[in-house]
Amino acid sequence: MYRTHNCNELRINNVGEEVTLSGWLHSSRDFGGMTFIDLRDRYGITQLVFSMDDDAEMCERARKLGREYVIQVTGIVRERSNKNPNRSTGDIEIEVKSLEVLNSSKTPPFTIENETDGGDELRMKYRYLDIRREPVKENLIFRSRCSLEVRKYLGDNGFIEVETPFLIKSTPEGARDFIVPSRLNKGQFYALPQSPQTFKQLLMVAGMDKYYQIVKCFRDEDLRADRQPEFTQIDCEMSYVHRDDILDTFEGLTKHIFKTLLDVELPDFPKMDYDHALKYYGSDKPDVRFDMKFHELNDLMKGHGFSVFDDAELVVGINAEGQCGNYSNKDIKKLTEWVQRPQIGAKGLVYVKYNDDGTIKSSVGKFYSEEQLKEWLGRFDAKPGDMLLILSGETDKTRKQLGELRLEMGRRMGLMKEGDFKALWIVDFPLLEWDEEEGRFFAMHHPFTAPKKDEIDKMMSGDFETLKNLKADAYDLVINGAEIGGGSIRIHDRELQAKNFTLLGFTPEEAEKQFGFLMGAFEYGAPPHGGIAFGFDRLCAVMNNQNSIRDFIAFPKNNQGRDVMIDAPDTVDQVQLDELGLELKGEEED
Amino acid sequence: MYRTHNCNELRINNVGEEVTLSGWLHSSRDFGGMTFIDLRDRYGITQLVFSMDDDAEMCERARKLGREYVIQVTGIVRERSNKNPNRSTGDIEIEVKSLEVLNSSKTPPFTIENETDGGDELRMKYRYLDIRREPVKENLIFRSRCSLEVRKYLGDNGFIEVETPFLIKSTPEGARDFIVPSRLNKGQFYALPQSPQTFKQLLMVAGMDKYYQIVKCFRDEDLRADRQPEFTQIDCEMSYVHRDDILDTFEGLTKHIFKTLLDVELPDFPKMDYDHALKYYGSDKPDVRFDMKFHELNDLMKGHGFSVFDDAELVVGINAEGQCGNYSNKDIKKLTEWVQRPQIGAKGLVYVKYNDDGTIKSSVGKFYSEEQLKEWLGRFDAKPGDMLLILSGETDKTRKQLGELRLEMGRRMGLMKEGDFKALWIVDFPLLEWDEEEGRFFAMHHPFTAPKKDEIDKMMSGDFETLKNLKADAYDLVINGAEIGGGSIRIHDRELQAKNFTLLGFTPEEAEKQFGFLMGAFEYGAPPHGGIAFGFDRLCAVMNNQNSIRDFIAFPKNNQGRDVMIDAPDTVDQVQLDELGLELKGEEED
Repeated sequence: MYRTHNCNELRINNVGEEVTLSGWLHSSRDFGGMTFIDLRDRYGITQLVFSMDDDAEMCERARKLGREYVIQVTGIVRERSNKNPNRSTGDIEIEVKSLEVLNSSKTPPFTIENETDGGDELRMKYRYLDIRREPVKENLIFRSRCSLEVRKYLGDNGFIEVETPFLIKSTPEGARDFIVPSRLNKGQFYALPQSPQTFKQLLMVAGMDKYYQIVKCFRDEDLRADRQPEFTQIDCEMSYVHRDDILDTFEGLTKHIFKTLLDVELPDFPKMDYDHALKYYGSDKPDVRFDMKFHELNDLMKGHGFSVFDDAELVVGINAEGQCGNYSNKDIKKLTEWVQRPQIGAKGLVYVKYNDDGTIKSSVGKFYSEEQLKEWLGRFDAKPGDMLLILSGETDKTRKQLGELRLEMGRRMGLMKEGDFKALWIVDFPLLEWDEEEGRFFAMHHPFTAPKKDEIDKMMSGDFETLKNLKADAYDLVINGAEIGGGSIRIHDRELQAKNFTLLGFTPEEAEKQFGFLMGAFEYGAPPHGGIAFGFDRLCAVMNNQNSIRDFIAFPKNNQGRDVMIDAPDTVDQVQLDELGLELKGEEED
Repeated sequence: MYRTHNCNELRINNVGEEVTLSGWLHSSRDFGGMTFIDLRDRYGITQLVFSMDDDAEMCERARKLGREYVIQVTGIVRERSNKNPNRSTGDIEIEVKSLEVLNSSKTPPFTIENETDGGDELRMKYRYLDIRREPVKENLIFRSRCSLEVRKYLGDNGFIEVETPFLIKSTPEGARDFIVPSRLNKGQFYALPQSPQTFKQLLMVAGMDKYYQIVKCFRDEDLRADRQPEFTQIDCEMSYVHRDDILDTFEGLTKHIFKTLLDVELPDFPKMDYDHALKYYGSDKPDVRFDMKFHELNDLMKGHGFSVFDDAELVVGINAEGQCGNYSNKDIKKLTEWVQRPQIGAKGLVYVKYNDDGTIKSSVGKFYSEEQLKEWLGRFDAKPGDMLLILSGETDKTRKQLGELRLEMGRRMGLMKEGDFKALWIVDFPLLEWDEEEGRFFAMHHPFTAPKKDEIDKMMSGDFETLKNLKADAYDLVINGAEIGGGSIRIHDRELQAKNFTLLGFTPEEAEKQFGFLMGAFEYGAPPHGGIAFGFDRLCAVMNNQNSIRDFIAFPKNNQGRDVMIDAPDTVDQVQLDELGLELKGEEED
């Protein structure tokens, strides 16, 4: 037996017992005749003591052990004279009677501590050492506990987990697929699923009623920071439901995991219209941990000779409460440069400072009277000490820019508090988005999303403007400004689905070739249905107040889609390509 | 709201309530003034009643509804005059007050009944209709419940579920990989995992201690019946364990799921040596629901002038107890032909019939005296009415042939009883298998399997014969003659792993290129570890006394690796191949 206990099990009431422990040498300290070793495993740390007086040979051996050596010791639990109240095993130590080295270790390339000296690439290359670090290990344990709680909750609520296939068919609509050449069907390819969307709908046609799956999905996109080519979804679908049946179910799920994993009781989630979210937060995933809502100012600001505002489609601002005193002219200049960065793209920034003494200072003071500026302040219910920040331009862009500025101000003002969780539903998304460049509609959610019931007639016969304004029965769950999940009521009628494909620019032949199996299934008694999918990696990160999903993934890929630990992707043998009937085009790159 | 109750919820105590139900029209019957409809959903069936007297218009509409129409009804629960005790809702029916058709249905291509008239290909093409059938639906629900119980058990026992990547690296050792061309790294390929083997070992190096995952694995093999290119494993690994720690844990898991899902209490699992299994059952996955063990007969049968036996390496037989009277000469001839089929490949079959009257009849009676035949019968403890069946030839082949015959006799004699579950561990597998054709060793389990501890020295320095006889610390779980899972204690020492790769014919460079990341990890404090993987599809089938895994998979592929429902694999656009830097060789097939 390698151990009688783990390294987080022994307490003061075990004193006197003979025990065997195994683990990693976390650290060691020599004090003349005594050597102390902190022995670590997944569960915790226990202190070992070796004494020159008791067993000089063994104590000498212990002194030579390096960090991360794997050892097994047997000894007697004794009370520590010098207790460590910060450690669960801090009352005791092990007086070692025998020591066996199970494996040696080279010196790790970075320290196995909460704060490590290893950079990102080094940590990824030696991910098996990085995971030994408490924060990464705890993230993975959290993820495991979370997925189990999700399953228990959905299982208790009558959901069936069904595994859908990974080797499916490529559909050019949406993101780019990873494809998999078939050897048995040469010249043909499977595709890895971007999501199990069509299969979960088929499961509804199949009468499964309530489906879920925690499942890997794949997108061959150009990777941005915090995107992964493979990611995990909590994927769900329900039959005989309206929108609110789905929202209630998954609000319940979300509350359950916050309660069980974080002991946080989330209040009921408000529902906010997509249009409202854009108008007041400049985003379809507003962070409502803080207010700082937009106020539109066209009526007050246009027509007074300030051409920037006069020519703008929208003038809109926020009130950075109490920030007047914090921003010198120089600071304002820096903030202006911040909104002018290409990532934000604003042309300029107008401020109105409401000084503590009641005076008002603005970058556009020469165009507007004190009365007018006061009227603006009134619009925001501004108090002395507040500072208005105003952007203008084309409506959609300006809202987006001000949304970014609002978030930045929220960060600077410390309004995004750790442990404060604000969840809400965004509802009533548009059904279709017009793409000027391609001159066609795209599905805002995906091609299977139903319009709201009272918009079906408009969809079947509407003109361009009507179509542009169609509302979908689609919804997103947003927590602290992060999109956690999204879904919709689906089309379950062949004719309506065919119409949607037509609106999206499919010929009937293309629609049939790619999605004929689904439209065919709709002819055999498809029930009304809808669903949702949560981004599981993101959910875990948000629940732990972390920005990056990468440390919730055991073996993530870097921004070039590489696993630097195993060095994948890699070249393959020519014989493998021959069997698949493939050849590389032109020069092989390496 | 589409429903207040599902179709398996209403009972006699609901009589008088107004309810709303939705579901599929399972069947309907007209009786003059009354129309009865069985309404079906995932949960059950509820009877609806329409009456010409009450509402002629609605009753007429109800009569026109076809099978599998999706309808919603509101009505009053009332007691049935003609109760159906075989149905949970059989005491009540719904007197329908309003009827809405939610969707129509074409006539299904096969009947949605337990016994269907649909052939396999048709069922697969319309899998979404096939799943509506009770047996398939129940299989999928069983699978879901089983996976949840597995997770609960392992979670309760300290296991962490960690998702390992799907886009990994191709390793020619083992079965053929599916490969995935990388667009961001042109000319390079990911591979889909045949198992998470190396990753779970890295997780042990990472200190995760107890890992599991229920995970899809992929093998691009020529498909035999009941093989799938993608299949699911319950994949596990533990640190600081010896073999029996692992066996105890997964025996506990197996007992748990049999108890919770089937209410079957499995007794402790015996351990049987691989050598013993082959010697007495001719198989490393013996079905021990019945005895019929082999008896070796070389000492009795050789040297008496019967050249077939004299020239054979092994003469071995079984006793088909009580079967003497069931086999006429013609039947014996048929049985002989059965063992001579190419799938079995025996040269002939010798029988000894111990007639009820005490006389003995044998196909080799002229070579052996009555005394000698009696001595044989004694070896088997045969009684009058028994029948010995004897094969001879090369040892390994003959054992395998007799193993098949034993199973066939077990089937014919009704000894494989449904609901009788016999689980056992097969242990002490050989480490290496010599392949005559390729002139090299292959790993019997996989290249990461450790030899038994006391064989390590022999492995490092042994000659050919020694190597051939090395025992691995490997084990299989067998239930009712099906291999449910297998695993081993792993090598955790770089030098031993390198030696194993050398024995398996890898050059040091090849070993480093393919598995350098793992051997490198072993240098940073790899703990002793081992694990196991269960074939989840097979486990579900065996627990339900079914032979085929296909009906425990929602959307299986056929023997050509095709999903005939969605018609995958399929051709892809040239632009997709261009982006990947690939071209098809020669003529494109379709």
